[in-house]
Amino acid sequence: MYYIGVDLGGTNIAVGLVDNDGKIVHKDSVPTLREREYTEILKDTAMLILKVIEEADVDFKRVRSIGVGCPGTPNKKDGILIYANNLKFNNAPLRMELQKYIDIPVYIDNDANVAALAESVAGGAKGAADSVTITLGTGVGSGVVINGKVYSGFNDAAAELGHTVITMDGEDCTCGRKGCWESYASATALIRQTKAAAIANPSSKLNSILGGNLDKIEAKTAFDAAQMGDEVALKVIDQYISYLSEGLANIINIFQPEILCIGGGICKQGEYLLKPLREKVSSKVYSSNLIPQCQIKVAQMGNDAGIVGAAMLGKL
Amino acid sequence: MYYIGVDLGGTNIAVGLVDNDGKIVHKDSVPTLREREYTEILKDTAMLILKVIEEADVDFKRVRSIGVGCPGTPNKKDGILIYANNLKFNNAPLRMELQKYIDIPVYIDNDANVAALAESVAGGAKGAADSVTITLGTGVGSGVVINGKVYSGFNDAAAELGHTVITMDGEDCTCGRKGCWESYASATALIRQTKAAAIANPSSKLNSILGGNLDKIEAKTAFDAAQMGDEVALKVIDQYISYLSEGLANIINIFQPEILCIGGGICKQGEYLLKPLREKVSSKVYSSNLIPQCQIKVAQMGNDAGIVGAAMLGKL
Repeated sequence: MYYIGVDLGGTNIAVGLVDNDGKIVHKDSVPTLREREYTEILKDTAMLILKVIEEADVDFKRVRSIGVGCPGTPNKKDGILIYANNLKFNNAPLRMELQKYIDIPVYIDNDANVAALAESVAGGAKGAADSVTITLGTGVGSGVVINGKVYSGFNDAAAELGHTVITMDGEDCTCGRKGCWESYASATALIRQTKAAAIANPSSKLNSILGGNLDKIEAKTAFDAAQMGDEVALKVIDQYISYLSEGLANIINIFQPEILCIGGGICKQGEYLLKPLREKVSSKVYSSNLIPQCQIKVAQMGNDAGIVGAAMLGKL
Repeated sequence: MYYIGVDLGGTNIAVGLVDNDGKIVHKDSVPTLREREYTEILKDTAMLILKVIEEADVDFKRVRSIGVGCPGTPNKKDGILIYANNLKFNNAPLRMELQKYIDIPVYIDNDANVAALAESVAGGAKGAADSVTITLGTGVGSGVVINGKVYSGFNDAAAELGHTVITMDGEDCTCGRKGCWESYASATALIRQTKAAAIANPSSKLNSILGGNLDKIEAKTAFDAAQMGDEVALKVIDQYISYLSEGLANIINIFQPEILCIGGGICKQGEYLLKPLREKVSSKVYSSNLIPQCQIKVAQMGNDAGIVGAAMLGKL
C-alpha cells in the first residue's frame, strides 16, 4: 500500500506518495499563498495530491490514506484544524474539505508530532517503540512517539517540550512564560547568546570574524569561532550546551525514550556538539547505570520529515 | 475475577485482594523487617497473600494475578527488582520467588507508577485515558498513565517528574542535580521554606505559633499561620504555590493529561491550596482556550493506592 503525506506549511504545500517503509516514491509542491481562505488552500492541496498520484503511476486503489501535518493545534478525531499560527485556519474542517475531492481516510496532526513520527518510522529513531524528537530552530519543536504512535494528550495539544520552564522567572518566552527551555536552547537563543558575548568582548575573534557586523550572527557563528580557538566563543558554546542538556535530561527523566533525536541546523556540528552534550546529559539523568540508557542521535529525515511523518499517520 | 495487590514498603508489606472495579475486598499487612534477605521478605509476602485469599473466602481459581508495587527500578518484563532505595533487593527475581509459592502471573512496577494507576482505575482520575498523579511528600513522587496503562519508558525508569529542573543551578536535590522541581515543591521543601521565613522574621505569627521551636515546623505550619492572617506565612504559601504551579504547568504542556491528581498531606488544605494553584497554572499553560483544559484534582486513594494500583497491573 501507499500513503499520501502532506506538509502544510506557511510557505509551501508539499505532497508526497510514501510506501510502507516510509520511503517517498514521488513528491511535488506548490506555494501556499497563505493569505487565502482555507477552502482555496485545501482545494490546491487536493489537486496536488491527485497530480502526485497520477505522476507516480500508482493505482488510486492502492493509496490507503492522506495524512496532513500542519502548524497549530488539530482536533485529530474530527479532522479539524482548530487554529494555526500563520494560516487562516480557524476551526477549518480539513478532513471534510479534502474528502470533497478525494474520498479516502484523512488524518491530521501537528507538524512537530509528525516529524517525530517520521524519525520513528524511517529515521534516527527507527526500531525504537518509544522516542522523542526535538528540533532546534526558531523555537524548539518537539514530538513524542510512544509505542510507535504519536502521543498528543487528551486534547491533541501535548508534547510542547520547548515550553517547559528550566529557569523560573528567566528569559522571556514567546509563549508568555519566563524561562522556557525554548528561550535558552533554540537557534534563536544561541544567536542572542552569541550576540551578547560579542558585544561584551569587542576584541574577541568572535567579533573579528563578523567584521563588527553583529547582524551577521547565525547559530553556527559561535561554533565557527570556537573551532578557531576563540575563548569567548568556547564559553558561549559550553553554556549553550549546558542549557540544551538541562532540557534533554528533563526529557529523559520524564520519558526514558530508547532514542532521543535532535534535528535542526545546529546538528550539522555533529560530534563537536554531541560529545559534550552527551557527557553533560549523562551527568544529570536520574537513573541507575544498572539499566539501559537513552541514546541521543541526530535526526535524519530533514525536509522530508513532514511528508513522511504525515503519510505514516495512516499506517498506524 | 480478583487480583492480589502488594504494597512492598520499607516498613510494612501490605497485601489486598481487589475486585474488577479496584475495590479492596480484604487486606492485611506484616512488618517488612527490611534488613533481611529478599528471599525471606518474599516468602513472608507469599504467605500473607495466601492468608488474605483464604480469609476473604474466595476460590483461589478466581484470583487472576499478583501485582507488586515496589520502591526503586523494576525490570517489568523479567519480573526483577533491579534495585530499591531502602531494601536489599539488588537484581532480586521477585516474580520467580513469589511463584515458588503461588503459581499465577506476577507483575511488578514502581510504587509511584502503581499509585498513579490506582487513581486512574478507581480514584481521582477515573474515566480519564491519560492522567498524571503526583504525590507531595518527602520527595515528589509521580506516575503517568497513558491510554489506561502505566507509562514507564523503554527501561522502566520513566516518569521521574520530580527530577526535572525548574531552576538551573538552583537548590541541591537528593538526585545530585541542582534545581529539581522536587527540591522546591515537596513537603520537605515547604518545611525548609517555612523555616527560613521563620528565622528571617522572628516577630511573625508564624514564629509565635511555634513557640520559638523551629523543629516543630511541619508542611501544614505555614498554612495554619496563613489562615491566621500572618503576612510572612502568606508569602511562604504564595511562593510555594508558585513553585508547585511551575512544575505542574510543565507537566501539562508535556502530557496534556485529562486529569492531573495531586496527593500527599498538603492536599488536606483543599481549595485553599487548589484555587490559587489552578489560577497560577492556568496562566502558565501553553494551549489555546479553544480546546479542553486539563483538570487538577486531589488524589483519592490515600494509603490504599499501593495495593489497588499493584493489583490493577494484572487487569490490563
